[in-house]
Amino acid sequence: MKDICFLSATEIARMIKNDDVKSLDVLKSLSTRIEKFDEAVEAWEHFDKNFILNKASEADDHKNLGRDTGPLHGLPIGVKDIFGTNDMPTRCGTNIIGGVHTKNDASVVSFLRNSGALIMGKTVTTEFAYFDPGKTKNPHDKNRTPGGSSSGSAAAVASYMCPVTIGSQTNGSVIRPASYCGVIGYKPTYGLISRNGVLKQSHLLDHVGIFARHIEDIALVAKEIIRHDIEDTSTIPFSVSNINEICKEAPPFDPSFVFMKTSNWKNMEKHAIRSFENFVKKHKNNIEIVDEPSYFKDISRYHQVIHETDMAYAFSDYYKKSKDKMGKKLLEAISRGFKYKSSEYVEACENRKYFYELFQETFQDYHAVLTPATTGIAPKSLKNTGSPEFCTVWTYLGVPTLSLPLLKGEGDMPLGIQIIGEKFDDPRLLRTSNWLINKVKGLGNDK
Amino acid sequence: MKDICFLSATEIARMIKNDDVKSLDVLKSLSTRIEKFDEAVEAWEHFDKNFILNKASEADDHKNLGRDTGPLHGLPIGVKDIFGTNDMPTRCGTNIIGGVHTKNDASVVSFLRNSGALIMGKTVTTEFAYFDPGKTKNPHDKNRTPGGSSSGSAAAVASYMCPVTIGSQTNGSVIRPASYCGVIGYKPTYGLISRNGVLKQSHLLDHVGIFARHIEDIALVAKEIIRHDIEDTSTIPFSVSNINEICKEAPPFDPSFVFMKTSNWKNMEKHAIRSFENFVKKHKNNIEIVDEPSYFKDISRYHQVIHETDMAYAFSDYYKKSKDKMGKKLLEAISRGFKYKSSEYVEACENRKYFYELFQETFQDYHAVLTPATTGIAPKSLKNTGSPEFCTVWTYLGVPTLSLPLLKGEGDMPLGIQIIGEKFDDPRLLRTSNWLINKVKGLGNDK
Repeated sequence: MKDICFLSATEIARMIKNDDVKSLDVLKSLSTRIEKFDEAVEAWEHFDKNFILNKASEADDHKNLGRDTGPLHGLPIGVKDIFGTNDMPTRCGTNIIGGVHTKNDASVVSFLRNSGALIMGKTVTTEFAYFDPGKTKNPHDKNRTPGGSSSGSAAAVASYMCPVTIGSQTNGSVIRPASYCGVIGYKPTYGLISRNGVLKQSHLLDHVGIFARHIEDIALVAKEIIRHDIEDTSTIPFSVSNINEICKEAPPFDPSFVFMKTSNWKNMEKHAIRSFENFVKKHKNNIEIVDEPSYFKDISRYHQVIHETDMAYAFSDYYKKSKDKMGKKLLEAISRGFKYKSSEYVEACENRKYFYELFQETFQDYHAVLTPATTGIAPKSLKNTGSPEFCTVWTYLGVPTLSLPLLKGEGDMPLGIQIIGEKFDDPRLLRTSNWLINKVKGLGNDK
Repeated sequence: MKDICFLSATEIARMIKNDDVKSLDVLKSLSTRIEKFDEAVEAWEHFDKNFILNKASEADDHKNLGRDTGPLHGLPIGVKDIFGTNDMPTRCGTNIIGGVHTKNDASVVSFLRNSGALIMGKTVTTEFAYFDPGKTKNPHDKNRTPGGSSSGSAAAVASYMCPVTIGSQTNGSVIRPASYCGVIGYKPTYGLISRNGVLKQSHLLDHVGIFARHIEDIALVAKEIIRHDIEDTSTIPFSVSNINEICKEAPPFDPSFVFMKTSNWKNMEKHAIRSFENFVKKHKNNIEIVDEPSYFKDISRYHQVIHETDMAYAFSDYYKKSKDKMGKKLLEAISRGFKYKSSEYVEACENRKYFYELFQETFQDYHAVLTPATTGIAPKSLKNTGSPEFCTVWTYLGVPTLSLPLLKGEGDMPLGIQIIGEKFDDPRLLRTSNWLINKVKGLGNDK
C-alpha cells in the first residue's frame, strides 16, 4: 500500500469509517511528511504535532466507543489562517493582529468539526489575504511563488501534507495558487458558503473555497460546508445533498464548452498560449472559441472600486494606527479605496446583477466556459504572488469556478485550466470537471 | 346608512362579499366625492371615471357568475403614481418621463389585482418622489401642504375619495403626509413588500407603504401585498396569514411604551410639544420617557449619503439629459450624491445592521417606541412638503412604523403619533396600535 499521505480525502474517510486505518495513523503519516518537507515549503502558519495527534486519538476513541460519527470523521483538513479558530491562533498574515484564539470558530470551521473533521492546523496567508506575500514557497520550485493569497492551503495539498484545505478568494486567491501549485481549486457560487468568522475584505466579493488533489474530495467537503448561515446574510438555503453522487456520474451526453479568449489573453506567456492552443485543438469537437462580451471591459475597474473601498472600510482602524506595519500593496489599495466616489461604487455593485443576467445566456448553449486560470506558470519570485487577472471577472459575477491541473508549462511546471459554470449549478460543474479530467487523463491524479 | 365613501375598506369588502352592495355603487359614491372635492384637493394624477365604473361592473359580473373572488374583490385602491401600471399612465411627478403605460404592473399592483382589488387611479407624487411638490393640497386646509412624497395617497384617503391607498417612503414619505392629513400611514419592516416595478430611489431605503383611516384596513391590505418576490432581492419569505386577526385581538396584557425624545425634539413647534406632553402625561402608566441612544446622531448623515448617492446613480441619465426639467431640491441632492466618497457610503451601509442590533435591545423592555411623526402640523405652504426628520432614523434602520392620527395641533389640524416596532413584528405592532387608538378613543375613527 502507498503511504497514507498520498491517498485522497475520500479514501482516507472511507478507510477510517471501515476501520481499515486509524485517524492517528493518518496524522502520523502527514506529520512525518510535514517534518520532512515543510522546512522548505513553509505552508503552515500553525501546526502543533502533539496537539493534532491527541485530537486524532480522541477521534479514534470516540469511534471505538460506538459513538455516532460524521462523514468526515477523523479526516484532517487544513484551514487558511484568516478563519477564526478557538483552539489555535489566527494571525491573518500580519503582526498587527498577532496570534489570537477567537472566542468562536468560524462557521465553516464549526461545520467541518460537526462533520467529524480534524482541523489540522492553519495554512499561511498573504498579509490580510491581499498581495503582500507570506513565507510559503512553491512545492514544485522553491524559487517560485505558490501564488496567493491562499498560499499555504494550495502548497500543503500540492506537497501531500494534507488531503484537503480551505482557502478564500476575493479576486484570484483560490484559482491562482491552485494553478501555480498544480492542485484543484474550487470557488463556489457566491452565497453558498458562509464567511462568518473569516477576515472580511469585501461582503460582495469574498468567497470561501476548497483545495484538493481530487474532484471527489472537493465534493466531499463542499457537501459539509455549503449551508445557509444566519450569521452571513449573503448565504441562501441551497441543497447539495447529492453533490457527491452527481460529481461521480457520467454526464447524459458529452458536455459542450466555450473557450473564452478574454482581453487578458494578450498578457499570456508564450509557452502557456501554446499549451492552451494544443489543448483546444485536441478537444476541438467539444470546444468552441469565442471572444469576451463587450461589457467585460468595465468589470476589472468595478471589481477594483468595490474591493478597495471595502478594504479601506474594513481595515481603516489598522490603517490609522499601524500604517508602518502594513505592506506596500495593501497601503496603496487602501489609500485608493478612500478616494473613489460613492456613485461609482453603487454603479459597480448594481451592474453586477445586470451583467450576470447577460452572461447567463452563455449557458443556454454551453455547459461551461473554459479560460486559463493564470497568465502562465508561477512567476520566479517570492516577492509577488502573480496576477489574478484571469479570475477577476468570475469573482465579480459570483459564478462557480475551478482550476483544474491539466496542463504543463515551461520546466514541467503546472498550469491550470479554469472551468466556469452557471450560478448555483455547482454540482453539475463538478461533474463536468470530472468528465474533462478523465478525458484529458493521467493528469490531475496522484503520482 | 351613511354614504359608502365614509365606510372602511373592511366594511366595503365585507358588504361586496355579502352582496349588500355592488362594487359599481362603491365606485359611483367615490366618483361623486371626487367630482365634488378633487378640484380643490387635487389628489389624483390620473382618474378616469368611465374606465373605473366599467371595471367595477366587470367585477360585479364576475361575482354574479359565481366565479371565485379574492378577499379584496371589487374594493377600490389608489396607487401612488410611481408604481407601474399597464392600463394607466405613470408619470412619477415629472415631465421628463411623460405618462407611460408600463409593460407590466408593479408586483404590488399585480398582487392587489390578484386579490380582486380595483386599481382606482394614480395618486399625485412629488417630483420623482423627492421634495419638489406636486399639485395636491391638504384636505384640512387648502393653503397647507399635504406632505410628501405620497401627497395624493394621503390626501385621497383623508378626503374620503378612496378607503385605502398605496404609497412609498425613502425618508418620511408615508409617515409625514399621514400625520399632516390625519390618516394612518404604515411603513412595514424593510424586506416585506416588493419594490419591483416601482420608481427606484434607493435599494436600501425604499419602502412600500399603506394609507387608510382604520387600522384593520391596513392589515387587510398588508396581508395581500406582504410577499416574497423573486424580482426584489430584498424581500424575504414571511407569513402574515393571521395579521387580520392579530390586529383585532386584545393584547394579553397592556403594552408598555417608551417615548423617545430624539434630538429633533428641539425642532418641534411649541403647540405640538404641548400636545405630546399632554398625551404622555395622560398615559404615564404605560409610557416611559427616554433620550435617544448616542449612535442615533450619525444616522441622518448616513441616510443622506446612501439616499443621495443612490439617487445620483438612479437618475444619472435624466440628470445628464434633462437637468433643465428637474426641480431645485432634486438637482441639489443629485449633485451632492456625486461627491461622496465610496468609503463613507460603505460605512453608512454597514453600520445599519450594527445599529439595529443595538436598537433591538429596546424591545426587551418595551412593546413599541413612540415619537412625534412630524415636527408639528402641516406647514402653511404649497412650495415645500415639510420635514421628514422624525422618520429618517426608522427608515434607515428598516423598522416598521405607523403614524396614528391621535392628536390635534393649532387650528384643529391633525398631528400624528409615530409608533415604532421591532423588525418583523409588524402584526403585533398593528395590534398595539389598535390598542392605543382604542385607549385614546374617538379619534382615528370616521366622522
